Amino acid sequence: MSTHWVVGVDIGGTNTVVAVVPYQGGLPEAGRTLETRPERGPEEGVTEIAAVAGSLLDDVLDREGGTRADVLGVGIGCPGPLDLRAGVIGATPNLGWEGFPIRDRIAGALGLPASLDNDANCATYGEWWQGAGRGTRSLVGVTLGTGIGGGFIEGGRLLRGASGSACEIGHTTIDVSGRLCGCGNHGCLEAYASGPAIAARAREGLASGVESRLPELVDGDLGRVTAATVYEASRLGDLWAREVVAETARFLGVGLANLVNTFNPEMIVVVGGVTRAGDHLFRPLREEVGRRAFSSAVDACVIVPGALPQTAGVIGAAGVFVMERRR
Amino acid sequence: MSTHWVVGVDIGGTNTVVAVVPYQGGLPEAGRTLETRPERGPEEGVTEIAAVAGSLLDDVLDREGGTRADVLGVGIGCPGPLDLRAGVIGATPNLGWEGFPIRDRIAGALGLPASLDNDANCATYGEWWQGAGRGTRSLVGVTLGTGIGGGFIEGGRLLRGASGSACEIGHTTIDVSGRLCGCGNHGCLEAYASGPAIAARAREGLASGVESRLPELVDGDLGRVTAATVYEASRLGDLWAREVVAETARFLGVGLANLVNTFNPEMIVVVGGVTRAGDHLFRPLREEVGRRAFSSAVDACVIVPGALPQTAGVIGAAGVFVMERRR
Repeated sequence: MSTHWVVGVDIGGTNTVVAVVPYQGGLPEAGRTLETRPERGPEEGVTEIAAVAGSLLDDVLDREGGTRADVLGVGIGCPGPLDLRAGVIGATPNLGWEGFPIRDRIAGALGLPASLDNDANCATYGEWWQGAGRGTRSLVGVTLGTGIGGGFIEGGRLLRGASGSACEIGHTTIDVSGRLCGCGNHGCLEAYASGPAIAARAREGLASGVESRLPELVDGDLGRVTAATVYEASRLGDLWAREVVAETARFLGVGLANLVNTFNPEMIVVVGGVTRAGDHLFRPLREEVGRRAFSSAVDACVIVPGALPQTAGVIGAAGVFVMERRR
Repeated sequence: MSTHWVVGVDIGGTNTVVAVVPYQGGLPEAGRTLETRPERGPEEGVTEIAAVAGSLLDDVLDREGGTRADVLGVGIGCPGPLDLRAGVIGATPNLGWEGFPIRDRIAGALGLPASLDNDANCATYGEWWQGAGRGTRSLVGVTLGTGIGGGFIEGGRLLRGASGSACEIGHTTIDVSGRLCGCGNHGCLEAYASGPAIAARAREGLASGVESRLPELVDGDLGRVTAATVYEASRLGDLWAREVVAETARFLGVGLANLVNTFNPEMIVVVGGVTRAGDHLFRPLREEVGRRAFSSAVDACVIVPGALPQTAGVIGAAGVFVMERRR
């Protein structure tokens, strides 16, 4: 059987990852990470992506002895909201490029059919196709970063929803009159457990005089406290950082318990930098889920960190193309 | 084309509805409501259900000119939790009968193949198959009563989940440190918007001296205040009752906004006595959903009361049998 290939493109606000992925599944044969530089505009972005993809394909086909006819398409992942039907980018705070027909432009530049889905769906699909979720029948993916996103796969298919915005779990309410979220509402999961929210909660404690080694880690400039600093301080044994991580776990646990009671999945895979907190996060998180969700649903569900920390998105972007082609 | 039939059985804590439903879809050709009387035990319940179903079938087949060979099976709806694979009842507070193999016993008594699903899934399926949700590709059903349940249908199939407990939305958290729920957790949707929770919130105001006509409607016995009394007082113009209904709408709106952001469905159909509150409920409910959910998802979703107030459950129970047979 000759090998076929799919190009994966994972466009983020900071970096864009391009990779060549086997159509039958597997880890990328070749990949490269570029700086996205949203300010250059989408046309230049597409040109660069196409050039990198072309050079990666040349390398892979040369090495494996294939031709361009063995490359079946390109799968694109992009921050949402997206108009999936038209293949067009919506109003994305971190990328811009609103209204740009990213799917057809990349398809045109590469001379290949293309698919488009949002980054959280792609990361979820990547973990299901080649990562922690292989072989599961139903899987929820939760992406934790600047924002919180999610995806749901059942029987190998992503839930897209009526307008392509299913699983926007960062903006589900867990505390009806709680913290103000960037979206203008109160008590969204994202207002507690996104990276910026974790940093904000840590800073609030510091401002009220809590003792901590956090200021020392940022040379006294509290504006530089990030979620990553909080995890580092927690690993170093800092009590306030540990409390912030534990509280994050409880809030995330409430959000994940809601997902367990809603989707009753076989697995929840948690993707993103927050997973670096390891057991400090996952132990209390699983406890909170166990307290709040139905026991039969808790028993049926494992909660794990992703297995593809850097590549779930790009592998999943390619995987979504494969999923749609096989439809 | 000869007509085929399916028996629907909708077992509730108070009443059981038995009906004969056309296999091709349609309203029940014949039906009867029995008192459930859980204390008699499940064996006697099955005997009575089988007798009623037999007599309804005789009537219908006689009238329509068919034979028992035209009856393809029986679909059963029952309060959860259920073991769907084994067809066995779990620990149901309102029914009892824990561990009873309801599916196979009814199948045996009627000499027909049988399906089993929980009452909320059946009501959702009934509204999708023959009610408000006909023709929708994706639909969330929300059942409001003593408890709050739900169901999700996409492409004509119910989401069951890994252990048959998907869409237990009554026990999703909307207020992490809020009201104590019967399940032992704080802030479940059910703790705010179930029938007993609505009555409890109304009584709390009365106990603190709020002016209202509610006491007069229950002859001064506040223990007799129910959600139905609150709706009645609201219709009569009682300001406190209106406030309780408006507050119920806001809490329900938060829960439904979470469903809109999670499933991005074409429709949410709200089933149960609470829908009698009409626009007093649905107007503020839709407003809250509009404030909290993604606008593209809100625009894609209509929120409506069910169209089959008494029969969604029994029609849906029969419909689930049809769905499974066509699988």
